[in-house]
Amino acid sequence: MWRDLEPIGRDGGSGGYRRFAWTREDATLREWFVAEAERRGLDVTTDRVGNQWVWWGDPDAALAAGRPGVVTGSHLDSVPDGGAFDGPLGVVSAFAALDTLRDKGFEPDRPIGIVNFVDEEGARFGVACAGSRVLTGAMTADRARSLTDADGVSMAEALGAAGRDPAELGPDAETVRRVGTFVELHVEQGRHLSTLDEDVPVAVGSDIWPHGRWRLRTLGEANHAGTTRLEDREDAMLGFAAAVIAARRAAETHGCVATVGKVAVTPGGVNAIPSEVTGWLDARGADEAAVRRVVADVTEVVEEFGGLVVEDSWTGSTPFDPGLARRLATRLGGIPVIGTGAGHDAGILANAGVPTAMLFVRNPTGISHSPEEFATSEDCLAGVDALATVLADLAGGDAT
Amino acid sequence: MWRDLEPIGRDGGSGGYRRFAWTREDATLREWFVAEAERRGLDVTTDRVGNQWVWWGDPDAALAAGRPGVVTGSHLDSVPDGGAFDGPLGVVSAFAALDTLRDKGFEPDRPIGIVNFVDEEGARFGVACAGSRVLTGAMTADRARSLTDADGVSMAEALGAAGRDPAELGPDAETVRRVGTFVELHVEQGRHLSTLDEDVPVAVGSDIWPHGRWRLRTLGEANHAGTTRLEDREDAMLGFAAAVIAARRAAETHGCVATVGKVAVTPGGVNAIPSEVTGWLDARGADEAAVRRVVADVTEVVEEFGGLVVEDSWTGSTPFDPGLARRLATRLGGIPVIGTGAGHDAGILANAGVPTAMLFVRNPTGISHSPEEFATSEDCLAGVDALATVLADLAGGDAT
Repeated sequence: MWRDLEPIGRDGGSGGYRRFAWTREDATLREWFVAEAERRGLDVTTDRVGNQWVWWGDPDAALAAGRPGVVTGSHLDSVPDGGAFDGPLGVVSAFAALDTLRDKGFEPDRPIGIVNFVDEEGARFGVACAGSRVLTGAMTADRARSLTDADGVSMAEALGAAGRDPAELGPDAETVRRVGTFVELHVEQGRHLSTLDEDVPVAVGSDIWPHGRWRLRTLGEANHAGTTRLEDREDAMLGFAAAVIAARRAAETHGCVATVGKVAVTPGGVNAIPSEVTGWLDARGADEAAVRRVVADVTEVVEEFGGLVVEDSWTGSTPFDPGLARRLATRLGGIPVIGTGAGHDAGILANAGVPTAMLFVRNPTGISHSPEEFATSEDCLAGVDALATVLADLAGGDAT
Repeated sequence: MWRDLEPIGRDGGSGGYRRFAWTREDATLREWFVAEAERRGLDVTTDRVGNQWVWWGDPDAALAAGRPGVVTGSHLDSVPDGGAFDGPLGVVSAFAALDTLRDKGFEPDRPIGIVNFVDEEGARFGVACAGSRVLTGAMTADRARSLTDADGVSMAEALGAAGRDPAELGPDAETVRRVGTFVELHVEQGRHLSTLDEDVPVAVGSDIWPHGRWRLRTLGEANHAGTTRLEDREDAMLGFAAAVIAARRAAETHGCVATVGKVAVTPGGVNAIPSEVTGWLDARGADEAAVRRVVADVTEVVEEFGGLVVEDSWTGSTPFDPGLARRLATRLGGIPVIGTGAGHDAGILANAGVPTAMLFVRNPTGISHSPEEFATSEDCLAGVDALATVLADLAGGDAT
């Protein structure tokens, strides 16, 4: 499976992946998902948002019987120049764990599902976990449809171009109800596991840190770079630069992380003083109030330069089901339970009331969202084993 | 004439102009130039670079007789969201001054030419005055062909798409030799004239300040914005922000101007730590050594962050022909002679040894490279009158 996925959306120059929602690359990834399901004799259904679901067993009969299914999976899209593991590892491992269980002759009491959430990274339209947000009603369909990419293409237009009806987009309670339990396996995006003294390839997730995205908009006056005296200038780039430095300093002060990873300049000419600069701030931390303090500090600087700060998204601290986390950690031999600064569809489902857990596979360098992202084959196989064990436990059947 | 030009390449949102070299808009502007020449019964010739020339009289016969022509004109392209005057005022005024002379029955001893220089702003391929630079050999054809725009399109490809043979691009000594004297009329891009006590609509140019463009490239390591600890980060955006602030501080210290008007971020995702940020620095000042000191100060900061600074272009102080400037100022009633921080094709021709002068038309706000750029109709007509007077003087004929 890994070999088939490897070339899709890979940039020849950087070696990184550029797999954005509702692009040609995304369509190829979705076809791969369907082909993997069909190879196993399973059908794919697509919900109102476009997330893809495979079921081993009948999820509606199980729901009627009060034993709704156990779902695993992740996403196949990437950030610009992303790595191979963030997302796809969870989907590939889901199919592999299913194969493991079937090879053992396992017969589940509860049906097992595999999901591919669309647009998890938000790389194209700016809002992360768009697929699970709309699915659960955490983001309205109207807002999703009106989001635009860097070329001004709206999500509604992108859906149309990908052959989907944008009017169909909306929350899908029927689909969510089928998910009795959700377990997402993901490569770790930090170095928690790799810096432990013991040799632990897999951990269970405790919570997702509070995190959000803000637009920092500083304003100036477009003018000629050569002939406008310094004292006559209003240069929006100066406010932006001060905001970047303030964000780093505030993150240090309040024990959080803060990143400005994207910027847009108007008019954007080499010899024109910027009239407007927009920077995108990503801020996260273990403590909600601390993250809010980081944003307040940055806002103060932006406003000093006559700019303004707009909140694009905010997700409070998201604990996964504590009982479920304990059950998984115990079942897997007492492995660690760790928090994460990364957002995941699992967090959106947990916020929607679905009992949810996560498994993290060790990342030796901690590097993620980069072509350098990596996990060893041994650790990935340990992840598949752990996922199979967890699914067997939760689906409650018996190996014959 | 002004009315025909007004809608071409105008952005509906900003009201600014987006007239970039070898685009559809540029082609429309070039057609306008040809139509204006034809309306006056004059032919347009195009040199090896694509600059357009109109001659009233035979420039080769005049050259052979040792009395090469007097040329005026400017450019029709713009910066992103530029104003209506920067460039076009010089071309429109050239045609209008020619009309004035012909209406008076003036018969020139030396032929009079009008030029439209291509790609003066360098908005698309990054090098200002590309048309006059290649024409005079100040930039090689190989370098010009290999310059790329933001979409990765090379100038060679853009020339091909515009129906020109990129192999033809090169210095054109024959065309340059025809220019015995060059006078460029331009809207002033500062407030020198508008802050004088007297009411002076037009001035003569003394020199162009030394100026250049540098790429500030800071390097980091792409990584996940949520899970990478601050102490594990190498964030290229921090070095960029420090460089922006250093540039402003250095400009203040050394009495120059410095601008970072354009930036590119890799990978450019909201939730990815930047692995590379490139900022474009534009620095100018009355004194060459001072500008060099600004760049040295910025380089020190960029290098502290493990980055590097690359010089894209550098033009030393460019004095216009002092005798010619005196002659124009006297002939126009003792008007002021002023320097400018803006680069012009006139500077490239002056550096190539062509006796060159400039006329500046008053700009009440000093704003340029912006939709707000403005000059009053009265001042523009005063510019046309001044240009007609100067052409008549230099072309040495007599009104019958």
